[in-house]
Amino acid sequence: MTGDGIEAVLLDMGTAARGAAKQLAYLGADQKCRALHSAANAVRGSAAGILTANEQDMQRAREKGLAPSFLDRLMLDDARIEAMAAGVDAVAELDDPVGQIDQEWTPPNGLRISRVRTPLGVIGMIYESRPNVTADAGAICVKAGNAVILRGGADGFHSSMAIANAFRAGLQAEGLPANAVQLVPSVDRAAVGAMLGGLDGAIDLIIPRGGKSLIARVQSDARVPVLSHLEGLCHVYVHEDADADMARAITLNAKMRRTGICGSAETLLIDQKCAPKLLPLIAKDLREAGCVLRGDGRSRTLFADMEPATEEDWKTEYLDAILSVRVVDGLDDALAHIAKYGSAHTDSIVTDNAEAATQFLNGVDSAIVLHNASTQYADGGEFGFGAEIGIATGKLHARGPVGPAQLTSYHYVVRGRGHIRP
Amino acid sequence: MTGDGIEAVLLDMGTAARGAAKQLAYLGADQKCRALHSAANAVRGSAAGILTANEQDMQRAREKGLAPSFLDRLMLDDARIEAMAAGVDAVAELDDPVGQIDQEWTPPNGLRISRVRTPLGVIGMIYESRPNVTADAGAICVKAGNAVILRGGADGFHSSMAIANAFRAGLQAEGLPANAVQLVPSVDRAAVGAMLGGLDGAIDLIIPRGGKSLIARVQSDARVPVLSHLEGLCHVYVHEDADADMARAITLNAKMRRTGICGSAETLLIDQKCAPKLLPLIAKDLREAGCVLRGDGRSRTLFADMEPATEEDWKTEYLDAILSVRVVDGLDDALAHIAKYGSAHTDSIVTDNAEAATQFLNGVDSAIVLHNASTQYADGGEFGFGAEIGIATGKLHARGPVGPAQLTSYHYVVRGRGHIRP
Repeated sequence: MTGDGIEAVLLDMGTAARGAAKQLAYLGADQKCRALHSAANAVRGSAAGILTANEQDMQRAREKGLAPSFLDRLMLDDARIEAMAAGVDAVAELDDPVGQIDQEWTPPNGLRISRVRTPLGVIGMIYESRPNVTADAGAICVKAGNAVILRGGADGFHSSMAIANAFRAGLQAEGLPANAVQLVPSVDRAAVGAMLGGLDGAIDLIIPRGGKSLIARVQSDARVPVLSHLEGLCHVYVHEDADADMARAITLNAKMRRTGICGSAETLLIDQKCAPKLLPLIAKDLREAGCVLRGDGRSRTLFADMEPATEEDWKTEYLDAILSVRVVDGLDDALAHIAKYGSAHTDSIVTDNAEAATQFLNGVDSAIVLHNASTQYADGGEFGFGAEIGIATGKLHARGPVGPAQLTSYHYVVRGRGHIRP
Repeated sequence: MTGDGIEAVLLDMGTAARGAAKQLAYLGADQKCRALHSAANAVRGSAAGILTANEQDMQRAREKGLAPSFLDRLMLDDARIEAMAAGVDAVAELDDPVGQIDQEWTPPNGLRISRVRTPLGVIGMIYESRPNVTADAGAICVKAGNAVILRGGADGFHSSMAIANAFRAGLQAEGLPANAVQLVPSVDRAAVGAMLGGLDGAIDLIIPRGGKSLIARVQSDARVPVLSHLEGLCHVYVHEDADADMARAITLNAKMRRTGICGSAETLLIDQKCAPKLLPLIAKDLREAGCVLRGDGRSRTLFADMEPATEEDWKTEYLDAILSVRVVDGLDDALAHIAKYGSAHTDSIVTDNAEAATQFLNGVDSAIVLHNASTQYADGGEFGFGAEIGIATGKLHARGPVGPAQLTSYHYVVRGRGHIRP
């Protein structure tokens, strides 16, 4: 299927998704919960077929000579399929956000007003090589009463299709519309363009998940709202009143616990007042853990085993065991650096000074700001959301980890006793 | 200024707005409150100049032969200027949404997480003939810590410029950046196109206010998110268990209190079980109040003084003393009618049956759903928001009346005690 063909198919999928979303919106929490467990078990029951499909993808990927890290993201085995199914079971058990009352009040006119969560509608999910996103995204969207149109990466196409088919069958077995979850049945790139156009108003929100080039394309071309982050250029700022041991532990954890996740720190800012004593200790911890350091002039006079940092380093999300280091003149200097180079994702201050902490927390315009905690806590699971489909750094609709509750809208339910407006 | 010229000017305005927004974000509630009172007084103090500018606009509008209703919307006098200034004073006194904590919790990891309101950034406001929107929008945006770029209608250009200049001077007198509020200094239509493009990412959100053709253009062409409603096709559904007097009073009020506002009812749906007794009474009230009725076949057998309704009537927002009337077979039929023809704005059920009310309130996917209350309560003031810049019917970000709180974003403030992630 190519060109016009795929666009027509997608428009039909959009219409089908709208229809499914209308049905989903009125389902009870119990039925959605049962349907998601059913989908999880259908994935388990289809493990053999999913593995066969995955082997097709893997063989093609090996023939293309794709990198080992890519092959690892693509690869499924029994344990990964079980983990995927268990993830769907976990979403099934989360609180249902639909129908939740966020606020209730009575203005002077005596009406009783409730702000009640509703589903959002139809989500378009565009992702790359990890086939497990098919099940994760399907579960989170359905939990919030939304239909989803999935467009997985070409390299994982057969795997994603096998997972999606099992998932749909599982939903149907509990009376849900199969079209609650649809996978684009083509690897044609025109499908992405069509989805970004919104399918004649059928898609309410696009969520991309993948590398920077995918996210950048989606953010620049989408005609519908997008929830995503382009990069996680996270900072740890060690303030002059930081506890030394805490600063060491948090910096090491923020950088090295996992270097490839969006919440890993990429730049250490350290106050000039404590840098002479503290930077050598922090730097030594990091070097011993295998981290490359790239420092500004002042940092390098305090710790020799550092490469010189260039302007480019302050703008780089390494996603690797590399950390840029800069000595700053104080809180304002740190805030200015983060405002200039940060990506509005996650930034942390380490200090025992409550006033400085408050200034930092109010002064950094990022989705997540932390005090005396590692940036690696930027995660929906750690926030207690149970599951997340990504982290959003835009300011519209939802910011930070995006779980089922963030994929809802609301409406006002107003109860009167024959109220007419004077 | 035309074409490329105005686009360059707007890009500069976008940059200036971003700069102002950064300053506004960190202002305390007191300073914003004082600045808005100062802006209100500056508008009062500039009344003579505003009236002179308005006379220029009025003269040109009269020469163009614009309709009396249009001239009335454009016209300012001392009382209207005072009302505008008083509106700004009222916004000044509202609770400041910035810094408000919506939620606070501690997940199992022991972190203390707060969801705290932040400003949104830069709002683009596109409106038509009413010059008072200049002050209303300026006040609501600044209250929420946002900068705003205003593009008023060409016919009110001189009036809006005089108001904006006074408003800016008032803000500046209290130390706010004048560029918190900017009016596009040109009537070139290319300015609207440039704003809809987002000014290179400088505009976070567009809010249009005006007639259906303006809103439709904005909704279809904007490359940035839009908060608006295209129309208010509001329904009153009189259920079989409605109290007769209440149904009469609510229907009359919903239609006739003010016919030109978005929350006025356009269609009455009445249950076939109560229609024989009740429809003649409701219809008589409406006819006596000067309302034209357009009914389906069953309605017209129950009340003769009705024009026949066509398919087009169910889709029409009259904004006039006209009401379409349809007898429905029950709740499901009413829900299906609203789903098909409604505009997701405001719909009301009249019933003494609590179960039917719940089904209606859950089953109608509109921004505002009411039980035993007039649709004319669809208003930010009535909701206790103090002021509104419009009603939103989309599902992203904010729905229903848009006041200062709806023009904010949030971020997560996370407090640890040396937390590192295992």
